[in-house]
Amino acid sequence: MPETSPVPLPTGFRAAGVFCGIKKDQTLLDLSLFISDRPATAAGVFTTNLVHGAPVKVSRARVPRGTARGVVINSGNSNACTGEKGIVDARWMTGLVANQVGCAEDDILVCSTGVIGRFLPRECLEAGIPVAAKALGSPPADFERAARGIMTTDTFPKMSTRTATIAGATVRVSGVAKGAAMIAPNMATMLCTILTDVALSPTDAQPMLKAAVDRSFNCISVEGHMSTSDTVLLLANGAAVPTPLAGADLAKFQQLLNEVATDLARAIIQDAEGADHEITIDVRGLRTRAEAFAIAKSVADSPLVKTAITGGDPNWGRIVSAVGYAGVKLEEKDISLKLNGVPLYQAGAPVPFQAAEVSQALKKNRQVHIELDLTLGQEAVRYWTSDLTAEYVRLNADYTT
Amino acid sequence: MPETSPVPLPTGFRAAGVFCGIKKDQTLLDLSLFISDRPATAAGVFTTNLVHGAPVKVSRARVPRGTARGVVINSGNSNACTGEKGIVDARWMTGLVANQVGCAEDDILVCSTGVIGRFLPRECLEAGIPVAAKALGSPPADFERAARGIMTTDTFPKMSTRTATIAGATVRVSGVAKGAAMIAPNMATMLCTILTDVALSPTDAQPMLKAAVDRSFNCISVEGHMSTSDTVLLLANGAAVPTPLAGADLAKFQQLLNEVATDLARAIIQDAEGADHEITIDVRGLRTRAEAFAIAKSVADSPLVKTAITGGDPNWGRIVSAVGYAGVKLEEKDISLKLNGVPLYQAGAPVPFQAAEVSQALKKNRQVHIELDLTLGQEAVRYWTSDLTAEYVRLNADYTT
Repeated sequence: MPETSPVPLPTGFRAAGVFCGIKKDQTLLDLSLFISDRPATAAGVFTTNLVHGAPVKVSRARVPRGTARGVVINSGNSNACTGEKGIVDARWMTGLVANQVGCAEDDILVCSTGVIGRFLPRECLEAGIPVAAKALGSPPADFERAARGIMTTDTFPKMSTRTATIAGATVRVSGVAKGAAMIAPNMATMLCTILTDVALSPTDAQPMLKAAVDRSFNCISVEGHMSTSDTVLLLANGAAVPTPLAGADLAKFQQLLNEVATDLARAIIQDAEGADHEITIDVRGLRTRAEAFAIAKSVADSPLVKTAITGGDPNWGRIVSAVGYAGVKLEEKDISLKLNGVPLYQAGAPVPFQAAEVSQALKKNRQVHIELDLTLGQEAVRYWTSDLTAEYVRLNADYTT
Repeated sequence: MPETSPVPLPTGFRAAGVFCGIKKDQTLLDLSLFISDRPATAAGVFTTNLVHGAPVKVSRARVPRGTARGVVINSGNSNACTGEKGIVDARWMTGLVANQVGCAEDDILVCSTGVIGRFLPRECLEAGIPVAAKALGSPPADFERAARGIMTTDTFPKMSTRTATIAGATVRVSGVAKGAAMIAPNMATMLCTILTDVALSPTDAQPMLKAAVDRSFNCISVEGHMSTSDTVLLLANGAAVPTPLAGADLAKFQQLLNEVATDLARAIIQDAEGADHEITIDVRGLRTRAEAFAIAKSVADSPLVKTAITGGDPNWGRIVSAVGYAGVKLEEKDISLKLNGVPLYQAGAPVPFQAAEVSQALKKNRQVHIELDLTLGQEAVRYWTSDLTAEYVRLNADYTT
């Protein structure tokens, strides 16, 4: 598990995480605020599930925008599948925050995560939001509490930051995320809020966030079940660089954003429920990125591939057969496979290898690397997933509704 | 578990199952023959996985045909991912059988199931096939031994039969199948051989078998991993009705064939590795059957739906959210859900229900019924799957290559 190193907030942001009573365990946190001291550009990327939570509907309608002031997130209740009342509740929740901040309701974005199909406990939020607003602070410890306040089955808070010089100023990109299951690409039960003190135009911010998500949160899966609540938000407040970035500065910022998003996506896989292994899948040599993605997802979602890794079994047959049903036109001779650097299958035929050694290496290391090299083109994708353990089943069979 | 009731062979067929040494455990059987005493029409439906076993390549090239004499199946070795040598071996295996039967090599079809990526042990087959040919018999006990000879991780042999009067004669349709994991639609790691004593033209036999498979083996999944070896074969030898069926007789036969195929498909789900529940999913009210199928498969393949059933959790949110990402255009208000007859979600909103009672019923009964009623059309599909247990993970993590 990664250590939780202090992650500083970008200039002009404050954060807080408090307990307001939505979760049963009072030692946990269940309500987080992320507030900018000035109007910020906001962008958002949301689940593509046609069944989605009320907060997704409300926040999606509010981005991109140039006047956002913050994000409120509760855990313990997803406010999903709650009909019209859920939408009213989500808007009401942003109104409470807007009152504290002194801004328009529409300038606050909202996410909720937790059990599906129950109405939000208004009394908890009504009491908790003023407490959270008073607790807002800019030290790393406050940001960490905000990261904890969005956790559900996560075992550790997920934070990442990058600092760089852009347009002559020191700028920062800092994000938090949650997620440990119901993780499928496009996206996952995952929430992420990324804050930065550069300025971005709303028309730049939205595609840049989408590009970062496509190579991070859209390239991870735990079990392939797409959530109803996935949301990635970006707030850019210009406190360090007040003029919207352009040209090479934009490209430099995109790189920082990609890195933070990838750190957070990988942290979700590291925390995958019950997982013993973190699996990186490189698929190369396809005609299009979509083909490479389809193959990576087919391998990543196969319970037989996952359980083979769990068992330390270098079962190349399960991997190669998952390539075969990915819906990509290919022949067996187009496929070569390495597992942790050892060739197992070359140009359509198995290669002799030291099975006991490869198995030992699987059993000893948490990191697993699957490399699939095809002969069909130049496009590639990197994808991350976890193995499937009896503990995953226990966690998800016993998860109380 | 269903009892193994005696299943008679259709007229003019003999079967055998023997041990020839491919499996390690001598108390098991690993080689089966199904032989017609006269030329028979043969049809076949095969895996659509682009990575597929040598026996699939060999048998696929030989059907439909009008002069088939039999099927040879070994278990313990799938002869998949074995390149050109695998194809030579598969043909050689049919040649050994043809020698015993006295027919052309091409008139014998072949299947293999078991570990992927190892060459067939020729010495076992060379010794075993003459033994199996001598053991051929028509009593039900021989058919059952043949059903056992194709088993891998199956815990019971899978057989089904129907008897009816067609064209004034008593006719029979009898089948055997194997499969307990790597089960996905289109198709599964499943093998099935169906024998009948009616006569069919090859041009009728092939689409009729495909129609039966589409509503049986193509509507089951255990974990969504499509195998490299799936094969369903039909032999029709005309021993009871020598003139090829036509008109209403064909329709009557199709019904028998559908019933036997569905029995065998459901037996595979009953035997799903480590499963505690057999789940029947009815999806109704879609514009096309393909849409209904996509929704059923999305729900059936979700590890979160499966583990909820394992845990006795009436978690309608997981089911409804799996509907939402099936790729079918719909809105939440189009969806209603019943679990074991109890409405949980109606026209896009949760319905109050006695959670403890529904949970108890899930825990007490092996059979689970998920009914999804949409408002988009008249098309429907019935689909079968199993739950996901820690035992499934144990079995597939420890499966020795």
